[in-house]
Amino acid sequence: VASSSLAVVGTGLLGASVALAAKRANGVRIAGWDPDEEALAAAVERGAVDAPAGALEDAVADAELVFVAAPVAELPEQVRTVLAAAGEEAIVTDVGSTKLGVCRAAAGDPRFIGGHPVCGSEARGAAHATADMFAGATWFLTPVATTDAGRYARLHAFVASLGALPVAIEPEAHDRVVALTSHLPHALANLLLNQTGTATIDGHDAVAAAGASLRDMTRVAGANPRIWIDIFLANREPLLAALGEHRRRIERLERALSSEDAGYLARWIAEAAGHRRRMLSEAHTDPGALQRLRVRVPDRPGVLAGVTQALGAARINIEELDLQHFSPERGGVLTITVAEADAARAGELLEAQGYSVVATPLLEE
Amino acid sequence: VASSSLAVVGTGLLGASVALAAKRANGVRIAGWDPDEEALAAAVERGAVDAPAGALEDAVADAELVFVAAPVAELPEQVRTVLAAAGEEAIVTDVGSTKLGVCRAAAGDPRFIGGHPVCGSEARGAAHATADMFAGATWFLTPVATTDAGRYARLHAFVASLGALPVAIEPEAHDRVVALTSHLPHALANLLLNQTGTATIDGHDAVAAAGASLRDMTRVAGANPRIWIDIFLANREPLLAALGEHRRRIERLERALSSEDAGYLARWIAEAAGHRRRMLSEAHTDPGALQRLRVRVPDRPGVLAGVTQALGAARINIEELDLQHFSPERGGVLTITVAEADAARAGELLEAQGYSVVATPLLEE
Repeated sequence: VASSSLAVVGTGLLGASVALAAKRANGVRIAGWDPDEEALAAAVERGAVDAPAGALEDAVADAELVFVAAPVAELPEQVRTVLAAAGEEAIVTDVGSTKLGVCRAAAGDPRFIGGHPVCGSEARGAAHATADMFAGATWFLTPVATTDAGRYARLHAFVASLGALPVAIEPEAHDRVVALTSHLPHALANLLLNQTGTATIDGHDAVAAAGASLRDMTRVAGANPRIWIDIFLANREPLLAALGEHRRRIERLERALSSEDAGYLARWIAEAAGHRRRMLSEAHTDPGALQRLRVRVPDRPGVLAGVTQALGAARINIEELDLQHFSPERGGVLTITVAEADAARAGELLEAQGYSVVATPLLEE
Repeated sequence: VASSSLAVVGTGLLGASVALAAKRANGVRIAGWDPDEEALAAAVERGAVDAPAGALEDAVADAELVFVAAPVAELPEQVRTVLAAAGEEAIVTDVGSTKLGVCRAAAGDPRFIGGHPVCGSEARGAAHATADMFAGATWFLTPVATTDAGRYARLHAFVASLGALPVAIEPEAHDRVVALTSHLPHALANLLLNQTGTATIDGHDAVAAAGASLRDMTRVAGANPRIWIDIFLANREPLLAALGEHRRRIERLERALSSEDAGYLARWIAEAAGHRRRMLSEAHTDPGALQRLRVRVPDRPGVLAGVTQALGAARINIEELDLQHFSPERGGVLTITVAEADAARAGELLEAQGYSVVATPLLEE
């Protein structure tokens, strides 16, 4: 993609981040347009857009590559407009969380390839944009039968140049994958928190008694309605299928509990343990050789620095770390995941700082 | 509770931790018994038990306070045996995760008060026991109509002396609270991971595409079947009620999605946001004034030390911290929660170390 030939339509967080990453990687000049003049001005201010356009058509007319970064609900219409305005040689792509609707809107135009960088930021606006947004992120691309192979190869290389890992997937399959891995978890977080949050049992507010599991499971609850209402509606069919299957799995569990079927529960937990091992294998070379150290810590500055510094000085790599806060008086719990080979040494270093350490394997035997 | 008058029946992780905490707080001598001789020897080795007994009766005969720390499924029988062997003046309590069954087994004996310290460790065995186990933890106590008030006051004070926060609750209400706040989240984590883990969509393994929300929501999946099968079965009635309500809430969401009811989704997300704000208020004085900083970090020793040290040196308190690993090549994402007043300074310190920072409020506006 040559200089001065990239356009971003929609200059919010993702559009401006694509622009910044592209400028850093390829030194291109970025044309930009946004229906919201303030959003466009913010992207210029952030250094993401070099040539703000007064009209969508002006931004895209000469662009070799156009990123459409509109909200999910507006994407189909916006992509149609961009395809009408873009040149015959252009590549047009988008960054939306669902793909079937926008691919249908492109109606087999060989210039369009759907895209979805999975970077999960909740921030909004070009002011928060960063060139690092896509480093290491999966970036789904959804070529279809009519997609031009040369354009696909160029977009693939471009996405990789931003630091992302391009993964090709069929649009409908993409929407089913994200329904399961992202939209269903989000929906369940809301469902669980609304159920727990409403419950007052014998005067006890259930939410006040929340343990670590409830807090982990509801971290994404209540997130950004401006984004999520559109996503839930745009992807409602795969999400409905996932919710229906979830309900049937709950019913199966209810039957096992009613009949006190310990064997079923054992198989069911073992199956989950196996999936968890596989999921962790994506992140860690050998998740079976990881230990989790659990440490109670007070709530004051410098506690984490002391702990991580001691481990860093001993060249112990912290694979994962989680600090959960209970209250200003009660402090919190620090959970540190390290390689088994380092666990004993890490435990000694923490105990030397006066902490009690409980070590367990990350995966149950 | 005077010297030499505390007995622990079941000297695994929790029993031995009660013993260690009691010794540190009150200098008492601990009698102990476990049906597993190796477990008893481990508790002696750990310094938790001073007087190992050859029989349950010998351990509890002279004890003023007896902690029964048997597995959930064995608790009712074990508590009956202890009550038969304990003195007339004794206080007998337990540390099980469900309370109705064990309280029924005590059959209104004025010497028994059910207990449940909420400390959520997955470790097993006295070797991992620590006197700090209960620091700041909620410790449910379940007095009933026949409970002796003097005994309750003494147990309450004893539990507080271990650093825990005693909370009185009716046994049946306790079981409904933990069904909602602990057992339902655990069950949903297993259900979600088994559903996602089984799905291969168009050749794509859904689990390999797991985002942060799926990983957060399945952190407790596949946990310790030895503990969890018993808990699910012991608390199956409140859990069945919670699962049934969850199913009905899913059905309500399905209807809203089918009819594309954006208004319902908006109210549903807003309700979750409200509950989340309330839950976070338990942990933080003013959760509305917290900012979350999101930073991409490489996978090598010393990265966390550098970050936390810079913030510690600037007297910036890290309220929460989460490091999630993507892969050895791709590194991970570090999420740091700090007070709004510190957020700009923290961002500058991180940027000075070469990181790009995306800052967002912990709670959506």
